[in-house]
Amino acid sequence: MKRPQPSARDRLVTSTVTLLSRQGYEATGVKQITVEASAPMGSFYFHFPGGKEELALAALRQGADGVDMLLRETLSAATSPEESLADCALALADVLKRSDWLDGCPVAATALESIGRSPTLREAAADAFERWVTTIGDHLRTIGVADRQTRPLATTALALLEGAEMIARVRADPEPLHDAAASLRVLARDALR
Amino acid sequence: MKRPQPSARDRLVTSTVTLLSRQGYEATGVKQITVEASAPMGSFYFHFPGGKEELALAALRQGADGVDMLLRETLSAATSPEESLADCALALADVLKRSDWLDGCPVAATALESIGRSPTLREAAADAFERWVTTIGDHLRTIGVADRQTRPLATTALALLEGAEMIARVRADPEPLHDAAASLRVLARDALR
Repeated sequence: MKRPQPSARDRLVTSTVTLLSRQGYEATGVKQITVEASAPMGSFYFHFPGGKEELALAALRQGADGVDMLLRETLSAATSPEESLADCALALADVLKRSDWLDGCPVAATALESIGRSPTLREAAADAFERWVTTIGDHLRTIGVADRQTRPLATTALALLEGAEMIARVRADPEPLHDAAASLRVLARDALR
Repeated sequence: MKRPQPSARDRLVTSTVTLLSRQGYEATGVKQITVEASAPMGSFYFHFPGGKEELALAALRQGADGVDMLLRETLSAATSPEESLADCALALADVLKRSDWLDGCPVAATALESIGRSPTLREAAADAFERWVTTIGDHLRTIGVADRQTRPLATTALALLEGAEMIARVRADPEPLHDAAASLRVLARDALR
């Protein structure tokens, strides 16, 4: 049975996810997206009449799905409750290293670029962060972290993963994510005491 | 006595620091920089023959100095060793809120944009992070954190500050930095035990 080929629309979105994670929104041009997606320029205008911002919005949502899935899989596969947050940092170190530190968070660069410039993209970035905080928070509740602590700890865990990922990528070195894993172990132990 | 006016070069660098912290490198054009700096285009070409990248390099260094000073002042003014890292998160929340969440880290956006695109800017970003990690690590050594723990904990503290700042700015809400402060208290207590 032949695998169904992804549509031009799907290819445009997927290529944009990759470009946003490598270089952010501002450096990513429509021309580059269509080349990477092997899609004609006409299909970009057809599927995204709102232009690059509309395509980026779809890409931020798809990118948010991908990270959410990585978080869920890693959290549910953890060997122990105390290790689950740390495992997310180690999983990120693995994934990032495989792309030679090029493919980072699909939201972070665009988030920082959008704050004073695009309310639409800023809101999509906030939604992505909120979704990941909710996923981590739900997991923390499951493993027995007190209700009043789940949201603050989930927010801190996400912030630490994002910051450590940025420093690791700039240095092309997993160490900051390993340091983050050690600190996440301390924070999980403290919250489970 | 009249205050000496900043030179055109100084104004160009200072305006670029602000623009990099608000919107990153890619969205910042030379035209916008010269307008914000009230500097003629000719002085840009005169002082920065290497173009926008050369100016951004100077701005990343000046921005790194500014953050380093904020960290040093906050760490040395802390009411107790256990509060010093948390105080940095609270100081950032104050500073960011004053600019209505527009003026963020002068390095973060450009760091993420530069990874696959500009080895020069990437290295400058790595230098800035390294400098801040050293400042935090030196402080941790002073307050009695064991040598083998100072660098990992300083890296985690910086990562958490950067990540929490990003989420706080996107949400226009100090809560992620307050959550970070609470976690930094836990990590400092653990390291001082």
